[in-house]
Amino acid sequence: MSAKIDTSLPTVNARIYPRGGLDVLSRDEVARLRDASTGMHDLLRRCALAVLTSGSASDDPRAARELYPDFDIQVHQQDRGVRIDLAHAPAMAFVDGEIIHGVADLLFAVVRDLAYTAIELRADSGRDLESTDGITDAVFGLLRNARILHPTEPNLVVCWGGHSISRDEYVYTKQVGYELGLRGLDICTGCGPGAMKGPMKGATIAHAKQRQRRSRYIGITEPGIIAAESPNPIVNHLVIMPDIEKRLEAFVRLGHGIIVFPGGVGTAEEILYLLGILLREENEGLPFPLIFTGPSASAPYFEQIDKFLRLTLGEAATSRYEIVIGDPIAVAKRMAAGIRKVRENRIAHKDSFFFNWSLKVPVEFQRPFVPSHEAMATLDLHHGRKPHELAADLRRAFSGIVAGNVKEDGMRRIEAHGPFEIHGDPGMMQSLDALLRAFVEQRRMKIAGEYKPCYRVLA
Amino acid sequence: MSAKIDTSLPTVNARIYPRGGLDVLSRDEVARLRDASTGMHDLLRRCALAVLTSGSASDDPRAARELYPDFDIQVHQQDRGVRIDLAHAPAMAFVDGEIIHGVADLLFAVVRDLAYTAIELRADSGRDLESTDGITDAVFGLLRNARILHPTEPNLVVCWGGHSISRDEYVYTKQVGYELGLRGLDICTGCGPGAMKGPMKGATIAHAKQRQRRSRYIGITEPGIIAAESPNPIVNHLVIMPDIEKRLEAFVRLGHGIIVFPGGVGTAEEILYLLGILLREENEGLPFPLIFTGPSASAPYFEQIDKFLRLTLGEAATSRYEIVIGDPIAVAKRMAAGIRKVRENRIAHKDSFFFNWSLKVPVEFQRPFVPSHEAMATLDLHHGRKPHELAADLRRAFSGIVAGNVKEDGMRRIEAHGPFEIHGDPGMMQSLDALLRAFVEQRRMKIAGEYKPCYRVLA
Amino acid sequence: MSAKIDTSLPTVNARIYPRGGLDVLSRDEVARLRDASTGMHDLLRRCALAVLTSGSASDDPRAARELYPDFDIQVHQQDRGVRIDLAHAPAMAFVDGEIIHGVADLLFAVVRDLAYTAIELRADSGRDLESTDGITDAVFGLLRNARILHPTEPNLVVCWGGHSISRDEYVYTKQVGYELGLRGLDICTGCGPGAMKGPMKGATIAHAKQRQRRSRYIGITEPGIIAAESPNPIVNHLVIMPDIEKRLEAFVRLGHGIIVFPGGVGTAEEILYLLGILLREENEGLPFPLIFTGPSASAPYFEQIDKFLRLTLGEAATSRYEIVIGDPIAVAKRMAAGIRKVRENRIAHKDSFFFNWSLKVPVEFQRPFVPSHEAMATLDLHHGRKPHELAADLRRAFSGIVAGNVKEDGMRRIEAHGPFEIHGDPGMMQSLDALLRAFVEQRRMKIAGEYKPCYRVLA
Amino acid sequence: MSAKIDTSLPTVNARIYPRGGLDVLSRDEVARLRDASTGMHDLLRRCALAVLTSGSASDDPRAARELYPDFDIQVHQQDRGVRIDLAHAPAMAFVDGEIIHGVADLLFAVVRDLAYTAIELRADSGRDLESTDGITDAVFGLLRNARILHPTEPNLVVCWGGHSISRDEYVYTKQVGYELGLRGLDICTGCGPGAMKGPMKGATIAHAKQRQRRSRYIGITEPGIIAAESPNPIVNHLVIMPDIEKRLEAFVRLGHGIIVFPGGVGTAEEILYLLGILLREENEGLPFPLIFTGPSASAPYFEQIDKFLRLTLGEAATSRYEIVIGDPIAVAKRMAAGIRKVRENRIAHKDSFFFNWSLKVPVEFQRPFVPSHEAMATLDLHHGRKPHELAADLRRAFSGIVAGNVKEDGMRRIEAHGPFEIHGDPGMMQSLDALLRAFVEQRRMKIAGEYKPCYRVLA
Repeated sequence: MSAKIDTSLPTVNARIYPRGGLDVLSRDEVARLRDASTGMHDLLRRCALAVLTSGSASDDPRAARELYPDFDIQVHQQDRGVRIDLAHAPAMAFVDGEIIHGVADLLFAVVRDLAYTAIELRADSGRDLESTDGITDAVFGLLRNARILHPTEPNLVVCWGGHSISRDEYVYTKQVGYELGLRGLDICTGCGPGAMKGPMKGATIAHAKQRQRRSRYIGITEPGIIAAESPNPIVNHLVIMPDIEKRLEAFVRLGHGIIVFPGGVGTAEEILYLLGILLREENEGLPFPLIFTGPSASAPYFEQIDKFLRLTLGEAATSRYEIVIGDPIAVAKRMAAGIRKVRENRIAHKDSFFFNWSLKVPVEFQRPFVPSHEAMATLDLHHGRKPHELAADLRRAFSGIVAGNVKEDGMRRIEAHGPFEIHGDPGMMQSLDALLRAFVEQRRMKIAGEYKPCYRVLA
Repeated sequence: MSAKIDTSLPTVNARIYPRGGLDVLSRDEVARLRDASTGMHDLLRRCALAVLTSGSASDDPRAARELYPDFDIQVHQQDRGVRIDLAHAPAMAFVDGEIIHGVADLLFAVVRDLAYTAIELRADSGRDLESTDGITDAVFGLLRNARILHPTEPNLVVCWGGHSISRDEYVYTKQVGYELGLRGLDICTGCGPGAMKGPMKGATIAHAKQRQRRSRYIGITEPGIIAAESPNPIVNHLVIMPDIEKRLEAFVRLGHGIIVFPGGVGTAEEILYLLGILLREENEGLPFPLIFTGPSASAPYFEQIDKFLRLTLGEAATSRYEIVIGDPIAVAKRMAAGIRKVRENRIAHKDSFFFNWSLKVPVEFQRPFVPSHEAMATLDLHHGRKPHELAADLRRAFSGIVAGNVKEDGMRRIEAHGPFEIHGDPGMMQSLDALLRAFVEQRRMKIAGEYKPCYRVLA
Repeated sequence: MSAKIDTSLPTVNARIYPRGGLDVLSRDEVARLRDASTGMHDLLRRCALAVLTSGSASDDPRAARELYPDFDIQVHQQDRGVRIDLAHAPAMAFVDGEIIHGVADLLFAVVRDLAYTAIELRADSGRDLESTDGITDAVFGLLRNARILHPTEPNLVVCWGGHSISRDEYVYTKQVGYELGLRGLDICTGCGPGAMKGPMKGATIAHAKQRQRRSRYIGITEPGIIAAESPNPIVNHLVIMPDIEKRLEAFVRLGHGIIVFPGGVGTAEEILYLLGILLREENEGLPFPLIFTGPSASAPYFEQIDKFLRLTLGEAATSRYEIVIGDPIAVAKRMAAGIRKVRENRIAHKDSFFFNWSLKVPVEFQRPFVPSHEAMATLDLHHGRKPHELAADLRRAFSGIVAGNVKEDGMRRIEAHGPFEIHGDPGMMQSLDALLRAFVEQRRMKIAGEYKPCYRVLA
Repeated sequence: MSAKIDTSLPTVNARIYPRGGLDVLSRDEVARLRDASTGMHDLLRRCALAVLTSGSASDDPRAARELYPDFDIQVHQQDRGVRIDLAHAPAMAFVDGEIIHGVADLLFAVVRDLAYTAIELRADSGRDLESTDGITDAVFGLLRNARILHPTEPNLVVCWGGHSISRDEYVYTKQVGYELGLRGLDICTGCGPGAMKGPMKGATIAHAKQRQRRSRYIGITEPGIIAAESPNPIVNHLVIMPDIEKRLEAFVRLGHGIIVFPGGVGTAEEILYLLGILLREENEGLPFPLIFTGPSASAPYFEQIDKFLRLTLGEAATSRYEIVIGDPIAVAKRMAAGIRKVRENRIAHKDSFFFNWSLKVPVEFQRPFVPSHEAMATLDLHHGRKPHELAADLRRAFSGIVAGNVKEDGMRRIEAHGPFEIHGDPGMMQSLDALLRAFVEQRRMKIAGEYKPCYRVLA
């Protein structure tokens, strides 16, 4: 097709010599890295392209692949270390033929983390990757290898929220980031656009005004979404976790507090994940500042979320979060105060500042959930269960419904076997349904055509 | 008045202990500083308010004074140094009661530079402030005292242009700043909004992506405009020169190259100032990259400027600048190449990297021009004069016409004595007139009512 | 016994929280570290005491143990990491109750390296610790874990020589260190007194004069000798290798050149080790600057060594070293020139700057040699063998003879089974004998009573 | 003479471009610097030679001048700054043709301070150099220009004592320096050998052990003694004050405490200078730790000093100092405790940490004393006077007696006019005489032939 001629963009071929950890490898490690990079070549290519187009206008991953159809990456061995060869790489990552330093850093991060997963966390590594402690250790290992863990003062705020939010909401996330930054707090997000970028952008300006030089803008992603949510150009520490569950665990182990901005179904799942953990008895008493916030116009969104949480998890759940509307300064002040309590608690319990060992994350939150009809049928969404168990099942229900509505796999299953059958209180299920419809109306969930529930409720 | 109730904003009282040069003073210097601050109290108050509202939405200086009517600043002596007392200061400059570090730095810069002018450059200082060398030495002294001069590699690009430009033009200045920043270049501007802010903003992102830590965003201003063009929040080195002429000299002595974005009459004056210097025989052969640039939509603006310069100063004038339209990368590449030549020239002629001693700035460019009817009548705008002499007179004509149209003093003079009488070629004067009308049409010059020339041409 | 009252010195009890690598451990690692520290408690105690008495007048390890009979060290687990408890520790390591920073660093190094060996290099670690590559990887792993490997410019000079040398010789090693330091070279030694301390001391002064801030004074030791040769107080990077052979390999992989000062039998063994490697065909062409040097009075020492090497390994062996007498400047200049060649070679062969992968160290140099009568009888010290094979056997012969003369184990074997029987050329054996006698005469080898060969030659 | 052939040493010609303050000069300043350097050429040459032979074995200044008879230094102007040309400079200051960084720094310090004195403090500078405040301001100005003044925590210990002391005493000064260094204290001395070098040497090792990187080893000298007491190689900040009195004032304004080691007449003068200041009523209550210390063998020395001070200045004088014998740890602990009190006092009185403004130094201690017969005759050494007045006259008496005994000028005066006539209590004068004789006996004062008093006492 001749269209290709029009869309293909300027490219560059380059040889890059890694720094920062990838530069002190043994011969054996280099060989394994090269082999691993062959084994995961497509994955590597996809992730590398995402970081090489970091900051581009479009956030459509397929666009990137279509715009740079001939892009390739190879990891080569040299006696002295590794060399990364890029072919037909996006010219936007280069200046006068030299790769931009920050982009190179992100590229090294991709190779580093994919290699760690492929080599250290491979099935036959002899490592325990099934038990809750084993999985937590894997998360720790990857983060340490990524040089994210340092014994510094607690100051890391995780920000969650949608990647496609309204202009108003985006500006608000910047304002919150700015107020956090003024108070010396660093930012960690999922590293895409929207609510993942705004807080970093605001914090950048605040850190510059406060003359704070060594700020951290940590982006934690996983192979399934990095291509769709390419790291924004502010990220200066990129981590690629092996899967969604390890990414979520990384957030809650690293962050000293979490702020939730308006988002879609993904954000709702994250909220249920976190409350499912915090409401467990073992985690009672563990301080974990959690603030839901947005501009005034987003007040209804959080009212709905709040209502849903009260109805499903009970009033007790509300003790774990607070909702602040339209007040970035109040958000930042409360977060700073909350983190001071986290600090005291860590000292009192001799836990580290850089990794929240004390938080108990049960193994069912660590293992992937595959929403088959069987799995969905085993969910038990009735009042009377312990809030954290209900939260876990609600999260799974959400996950399945989303899949049934928008993910290729899920939609195919629904087509083949009919709607999921979910056992649940009608009231609870109606509340869930109302939430989903609201997301669709507010355009927080992309649906082709009219929204049609993909499940049936069995009381 | 009840209006006060509505407009007054939250304020803070604070005591601040200076850093960075103001912290190692002798007892005598402290006393002189305190005395000087009393003598220039109103000026100090005005400038301090400008930096304390740095980055606020409004750029109207009167607004600031109306919004913070009770603001006051006092410099107090303490045995160990000086203390700055702020009363009813804008709360926006503080975080939880503590002044923002960067704002404090700007505040110290205000005190430092006003004190330097009041003490070191006072009329009875015994210092030669009349000769060309004496004035240049004063400029050097103030800049060194402001810690702007360092023996580092040449990389400072001065950006000139309007403070109220179109959105398109603003975005373009950011893009140019971004491309300059990617190439390791630092930015110096007049430190207000518009074309003074855009390049810094773009460079900030590029410097972050290149992991360049010690970037310089230098803002050079003078007391007459700082209030109107409050330093944008990116500025990390603020310098307040005593007057317009010393500010212009600071630009051309510090900058290793200059980029001119679209602007109004002020920008045109700056162009004539610079060409008037560069076209002198003594400065022939001295490399000084000068690029006029803007987005495609601004092409007519530069065509008009170019036409005017050719017509008035002759074709030779065009050898000193190049016009690049709609191509930020080309602008940055040429500027980088131009600065490499500047570097070679400085080495060859053993001139310093941090101050352009070799450039000859004649004393008539250093002394203020007051546009009285007498002064305007002595201008000689005819072909046949040396280009640099003509440029000097054209700059003065410009200055006077602007004053007659928009400045209170000038307008009063015109009302009292009728239009200025300017001796000049009719063709040249028509060209000048056309340029002014174009500025008015493009809204680059603010005129109440219809534009009416304030001068008559005597051939 | 009342003697205890006289000798016991002031002590301190303290709790210490590690930094620098030991501060970011997983829960599991902390547990294993604590367990390992229990398993190797006596070893840990001995090594810890050595660093806590670093710089003390006496170098007699038993003295330290007698002076601090109640000293104990325990590694405790805390959720947040490890804690080191010291009981009855030498007060000399503390200032007003706080441990000296540098001593704490050495202490952490002891825990770090013993733990690495106990955990990562334990027999059942699944790691290949038998093959040549596997052993080299173990050396690499321990050094990287000790943060010794950095991709900086080649500048590390290994200095070998005796720990009890004459005052003249000691002053000379300082002068050589000074000249090396003036030329920006860093020092690596066995970290005890004498020739291990002098070069560091000289380099310290030179580095200070050259305003070189980040200098490395690396001490590489092993558990068997650290107690006897406690790290001198200048060492700022201490590494404890698991055994003598890995320590020797660490020297030749890390160092960009080696200087040999006068020493005893140990030094002779080191020379034979290195020549045995360098004379192999695979290592031909690999630049490795090797200089034997001492003050004028030590000329006879090197003449003897030289004569012995020529006679045993042949004239070819002399191509690998040069002898410089009484000229520290020449030594430093030649070493600097030699390292420049090493640098070029590493670049040409894409080998790393920080680890000499290209050097082939055969497995028989990596595995410990235990000098039993059987082992000694298999040595083959005849002309006609390849120089590097002969060097290997000569080194073993040396090792065995030393053991038979001065080490408890060896002396007992000789007593029980009579002298070793060594197969060798009479000429070669006489030469060896002459060398040993010279060492005794020059007091480089401590013998109780008269020297009596512990071997018989079988031609 | 052929002797020249034997003594002349290797030399180097070099061009050096200054850093650190001398690199950002105006054209005018460069011209004045060059002119000044011509005017003070011999002085510059002498001081430069002293630093270029820094650390040489011999401390005899004449030796240096004889060893490098053709040495010359010229300061040249270049548009971009100054260039220092060295001809026939001692090769020991160079490594392979490049000047040692630290030596270059000392050389720049020489040019910087001599130029400051010649330009800023010249008689016709319009500056008040006669009043007490004016002189203090000159001291402050020179020190600030030398970049010695920083707003850091108080930690500077001035060490006084003889440059030719016994081996025992020298070792003791090192031990004291070591203990000071372990406690984070920096050292300031007169920058020659002996007690001026030992404390720095000890502190260097301690700072290295404590991993303290930015240590200050300040040497304060003046043109009359720098040649005789060439800066030891540890000094990393050299200041050349214009005369003895300003040098003494620099010590007491900069230091947060003073330690006096055994010394000769010069040290005695320094003690009388300091006590003369501290005993004034205005300085009562101002904390100023002052410790006299030496090894056990030096106890008699301090007993004698103590006795003399009690007898002359009265028991009250002893409240201002304490004597510690043979206990470096106690010295360091008390000094650290004393400096903590100084810190509190500075905060309470809002005095700066970096310059002791609160200390009143009367003008008679600031102006040079020339020991003519007339001046000596006006001294009034009787009991009943205020201690500080008596201390001032005693210091002058000392100064004159020393001059009469060993200085060329003074000896000539005595020869011409007979012994000085001093009005004083016989007891006090006997005590003084006893002290002088003791100095001679202990070889702390160099006398050719037998000691013969150069004065007569008039009661």
